[in-house]
Amino acid sequence: MPHRLLLLSRHADQYHKLITAAGLPELEIVTDPAQAEIVFAEPILLAPKLAELPRLLWAQSIFAGVEPLMAPGLRQDYRLTNAREVFGPLMAEYTFGYLLWHERQMLARWHAQREHRWDNQMPGRLQGKTLGLLGVGSIGAVMAHTARAFGMRVLGYTRSTQNNAAVDAYYHGEQWPAFAAQLDYLVATLPATPATRGFLNAKRLAALPPRAVLVNAGRGSAMEDAALVAALRNGQLAAAILDVTQPEPLPAEHPFWDAPNLTLTFHTSAPSFPEDLVGVFIDNYRRYQRGEALRFVVDFAAGY
Amino acid sequence: MPHRLLLLSRHADQYHKLITAAGLPELEIVTDPAQAEIVFAEPILLAPKLAELPRLLWAQSIFAGVEPLMAPGLRQDYRLTNAREVFGPLMAEYTFGYLLWHERQMLARWHAQREHRWDNQMPGRLQGKTLGLLGVGSIGAVMAHTARAFGMRVLGYTRSTQNNAAVDAYYHGEQWPAFAAQLDYLVATLPATPATRGFLNAKRLAALPPRAVLVNAGRGSAMEDAALVAALRNGQLAAAILDVTQPEPLPAEHPFWDAPNLTLTFHTSAPSFPEDLVGVFIDNYRRYQRGEALRFVVDFAAGY
Repeated sequence: MPHRLLLLSRHADQYHKLITAAGLPELEIVTDPAQAEIVFAEPILLAPKLAELPRLLWAQSIFAGVEPLMAPGLRQDYRLTNAREVFGPLMAEYTFGYLLWHERQMLARWHAQREHRWDNQMPGRLQGKTLGLLGVGSIGAVMAHTARAFGMRVLGYTRSTQNNAAVDAYYHGEQWPAFAAQLDYLVATLPATPATRGFLNAKRLAALPPRAVLVNAGRGSAMEDAALVAALRNGQLAAAILDVTQPEPLPAEHPFWDAPNLTLTFHTSAPSFPEDLVGVFIDNYRRYQRGEALRFVVDFAAGY
Repeated sequence: MPHRLLLLSRHADQYHKLITAAGLPELEIVTDPAQAEIVFAEPILLAPKLAELPRLLWAQSIFAGVEPLMAPGLRQDYRLTNAREVFGPLMAEYTFGYLLWHERQMLARWHAQREHRWDNQMPGRLQGKTLGLLGVGSIGAVMAHTARAFGMRVLGYTRSTQNNAAVDAYYHGEQWPAFAAQLDYLVATLPATPATRGFLNAKRLAALPPRAVLVNAGRGSAMEDAALVAALRNGQLAAAILDVTQPEPLPAEHPFWDAPNLTLTFHTSAPSFPEDLVGVFIDNYRRYQRGEALRFVVDFAAGY
C-alpha cells in the first residue's frame, strides 16, 4: 500500500507537478485528509486541519517557522519536520543586500537621480566591519560564510552552541554588552519561542553603538517595538531593517511605518521557492520510506 | 639623500598623516614640484603638473583609471603605477548590492512603506543565476569569488586571458552571442581605451536576453548610450545600473536620468579610501627603495 500525501499550500499545483515529476516510489498524492499519512504543508493551513487527519504520521512544513502548530491544545502525536538550509542563502541575499542599501545610500542616490543631481558622496562599505549574529543556526551559518566573503569579522551570540568555524568569537548569557558594543551590524534570526519574546529590549538595544544597524529577519516577537522606535528617534541606533513584525501585516497606524531610518520588507526575506522546498520534501520522503531518521525534526517542547 | 614625495590629492592632509605614521625610510614629503622624484596623485591633478616635475621618476596613481595621463602630448618618461586590488572588494559590494536592489525590488518596497501598504510580493534571487563578466582583471576576479559565495554561475568574456578558477567558462572574440545569451547579469569593468570604446553597442546588447540586468562599473566610453536607452525602452533589457557615464557629471538633459529601469550611481562604486590607498603606496615605495620591480605598472601603449 502506498504512502498517501496531502498537499496544503497556495502553490499546491506546482508542488503536485514537481513531486509527480520526481517519480517517488510508493507515494500517492491524495486530496482527502482522511486518507493522508503524510502532509506537506504551510503551517498556517495545516493547523486548522489537524483534527481531520486520523492517519497522520508525518508533516513536512514548507516554512522554517512552525508557530501555528505549537498553539496550545493542538495534537503533537505526529512527526513534524520543518524546512531548513534552503533559507540560508536567501537570508544572506536579503541581509547583505539591505546592509548595502544602507551603506551605499541607495535611497538618497535614487532621490538624486530623480532630481538630475550628480551625487557622488562617499559611500560606506562592509569590508572590515563587524557583524553580530543573534542566533547561529543553519541560517546564521550561511550568513557568517557570506560575511567572510565580504571581508567582515563575525561574532555570534548564542545560548550555548559555538560550532561554526566562520564565526570569529562567541558570546553567551551575561556577555551581551561585550558582544553588542563591538558591532556595526546586528542580525537577529531568533525563532518565536517564549524564551526569545522581547529579547531585544531597551537595555539590550542601548548596548549597541550609535553606528549600528539592526536587521531582524527572525520573528517580530523578539523585538520590543517601542524601545526600537525610541532608539532610532534618539540616534542611539543608525538604522533598522525589519523583515518581521508583530503582528503581520502591520496595522496602518503602527509607529514602525514612519520611524526614522527604519526600513520594512514585509516578511519577504526568505520566500519559499517551490523548486527549493520540494527538494527538502523529496529528500526526507526517501528517508521516511526507508525507515531512516528524518532531517530537521521539530522539538515540540522547544518550539523549533 | 632622501626620496622626495609630492602628494596631489583632495585628501593630501590625510595621506600626509598616514604616510608619516608609517615611518618609511629615506622618504621626505615635499610641497615643491621641482624637488619631487615621486608623486602620489589623482591622475586628474597630476596631468597638468607633469611639466613642472623635472625630477619625476615614479608616479603612483590613487585611482585605477589613469586616462588623464594618457592624453596625447603628455610625457611618458616616468614609471606610472596605478591602484589595483583595493577596488575589487568595493566593486563587489557595489555590484551585488545593486543586483539585490533589483532582485529584491527595494525601491518598490520603499514606496509601499511610504504608503503604509504591506507589499509581500515574492522577490527574485541571485542563487542559481548566471553572471557574465566583461573583463576579468583583478576586479573581476573578486566579483567571481563573491558570485560563487552567492551560489551563482560565472562566465567571463575576455580578449584572451582565462586564468581565474572562479570563472566557470570563458568566451572570446566572436563568441559574444553565445556568452551573452546565457546571462542574467552582465557586469562590465572595461578600462577606457580605444579598443573598448562603444563596445556595448546595439548589436551586442541585442544578444542579451530580456531578463538581463546590465551593470557598467568600468568606464562610460564602453557604452553606446542611445542603444542602451532604446533597449530599456523596448524591454530588450530588464534594467541597467550605471556607475560610469560619458561625460561625468552627466548633463542635466541626458536621456539616462529618466530612462526606464536605469539606475545611476555617480561614479561611487569604488571610492578611494585613504587607508586602503596608502597601503598600495607604502608597499610600492618599499619596493622602489630597494630597487625592486613595482606592482601595478601601467603600460602607456595599452593605456592601463
